[in-house]
Amino acid sequence: MKTIGVDVGGTKIAAGVVRPDGTVEDVTTRPTPEDSAQQVVEAVVDVVQELRGTREPDEVAAVGLSVAGLVDRDRRRVMCAPNLPWDGEPVRDLVAEETGLPVTLDNDGNAAAWAEFVHGVGAGQDDLLLVAVGTGIGGGLIVDGELERGAFGMAGEIGHLQVVAGGLRCGCGNLGCWEPYGSGDALTRRARAVVARGDASARALTERCAGRPSELSGKDVTELARQGDPASRALLADLGRWLGIGTAALAAVLDPGTVVLGGGLSSAGELVLTPMEEAYRSHLTGRGRRPTARFAVAGLQNDAGLIGAATLAAREVS
Amino acid sequence: MKTIGVDVGGTKIAAGVVRPDGTVEDVTTRPTPEDSAQQVVEAVVDVVQELRGTREPDEVAAVGLSVAGLVDRDRRRVMCAPNLPWDGEPVRDLVAEETGLPVTLDNDGNAAAWAEFVHGVGAGQDDLLLVAVGTGIGGGLIVDGELERGAFGMAGEIGHLQVVAGGLRCGCGNLGCWEPYGSGDALTRRARAVVARGDASARALTERCAGRPSELSGKDVTELARQGDPASRALLADLGRWLGIGTAALAAVLDPGTVVLGGGLSSAGELVLTPMEEAYRSHLTGRGRRPTARFAVAGLQNDAGLIGAATLAAREVS
Repeated sequence: MKTIGVDVGGTKIAAGVVRPDGTVEDVTTRPTPEDSAQQVVEAVVDVVQELRGTREPDEVAAVGLSVAGLVDRDRRRVMCAPNLPWDGEPVRDLVAEETGLPVTLDNDGNAAAWAEFVHGVGAGQDDLLLVAVGTGIGGGLIVDGELERGAFGMAGEIGHLQVVAGGLRCGCGNLGCWEPYGSGDALTRRARAVVARGDASARALTERCAGRPSELSGKDVTELARQGDPASRALLADLGRWLGIGTAALAAVLDPGTVVLGGGLSSAGELVLTPMEEAYRSHLTGRGRRPTARFAVAGLQNDAGLIGAATLAAREVS
Repeated sequence: MKTIGVDVGGTKIAAGVVRPDGTVEDVTTRPTPEDSAQQVVEAVVDVVQELRGTREPDEVAAVGLSVAGLVDRDRRRVMCAPNLPWDGEPVRDLVAEETGLPVTLDNDGNAAAWAEFVHGVGAGQDDLLLVAVGTGIGGGLIVDGELERGAFGMAGEIGHLQVVAGGLRCGCGNLGCWEPYGSGDALTRRARAVVARGDASARALTERCAGRPSELSGKDVTELARQGDPASRALLADLGRWLGIGTAALAAVLDPGTVVLGGGLSSAGELVLTPMEEAYRSHLTGRGRRPTARFAVAGLQNDAGLIGAATLAAREVS
């Protein structure tokens, strides 16, 4: 049975037809409309119909939505999505009505964690923590082989763990969340500061952006680091250290068996994962007296959200 | 079916015969031996035999141990217990051999959370977080109606969530754990500092300890606060604020429906719970766009560990 997964992000909507083994047949994308909730629903329906257009009517059994926002307990509405115009509308039912297919709705961190658990590097790992590092920090928890959704459906917002009391302001309004220390935005901010200061060590970074710090992106840093630039490697190591500190705090509470580094920054691979794991090991409470989690880079990377959403949809209709 | 619950703490061992409805028939206590693992096993066997002594041979069906330490995944051994001489011995099997009864072993935070979930203020609340504040901060998580134990059995060590980067040294060796900010020890430390500074507002506290700060206990602060002493109330409010900040961080990750304040400090009731809930509400990520947890003071207080252990033992043999 094939299903369609749709990943609804703040800048683009990506959708694909997913086979039972988790592989993706087709992918299509759209820019995410910014003006109204209805426009976003229409864009989602549009990608679904495009993917169905070339197929037999019953080839696709269901649609799974993965959304960058808080989803309510019934998984019908997106309650809080800083980068989307959805604000409490029953989007699951709206998409179901327009497409005539069963639709499931999930937070993107949950969907990605499920994808890694079923089809990715976490396959068969019943207690898994996904740390998804992109612009922000998202994530998802698998506990005893099930997604942990919480009492109100909003568990897994790990980027808003407080790690620095009275620290940097987070997009959520709080001070000192993990996100402004361990996210792609944090990496970019630090890289730009290094260039703006005119550090002698930052020559490669400065050349890369022709001396204009605001032009520098996280991707630039990752690419330079891969080429061996010491300043860029140090920036990724800083990021990894913050990720390890937060993961150790989460591990005190959750005791995961597997930690998966996902999101766009996972493309940096060991350059982030190694310092992350080192910081985790040196900050874990009870270290030396307990087993430690296995660390791995996500297998599905950018497709994890749509694969996870499609897999959850398939599970629900089967 | 009755079972015996034994709560093995750093200073005392408390045991009781627990009925199926969670009420306790008899309680007996011993000081915890400090010298050897075997002595502690013997003391546990001793309280069990004392409680069985006056009963029919088959009246007690099993024994549940609740221990202040990290328990391994198989729940046979205590791996890390700063205040006990147990260090990896198969204590579950040793007690089972000596008593001839089935024995279960759990962390005390887990046991207390289970007790509140089955018989206490959290009855029927499928997503519950217990914040147990005594000398330190312990706790336990109920997720979808089950205890969350983690991949290696060590979940729920919420006191070792980092809340202040580079902050106060915790007993676990880390800096900035929640415990040195939100525990009974933190309350005592702050109260003593207020007296030592000779603050004019601290007259009642100073009189209470006859001017000797080191004589002051958390219990003194709670009693004076109940009598209306403003300085003592402010100290409990500080404590509650730290507890709310940490709980908000945990709620971002776990999204509990019910938060139970347990442990010895729960005897301060609303004097801690109200500032705790206020700080939680003002620090919760996505506040205003999501439901918030219900807060309650533990119903079973000091007996929660032994009731929970006995209830878990009953569940396992039934």
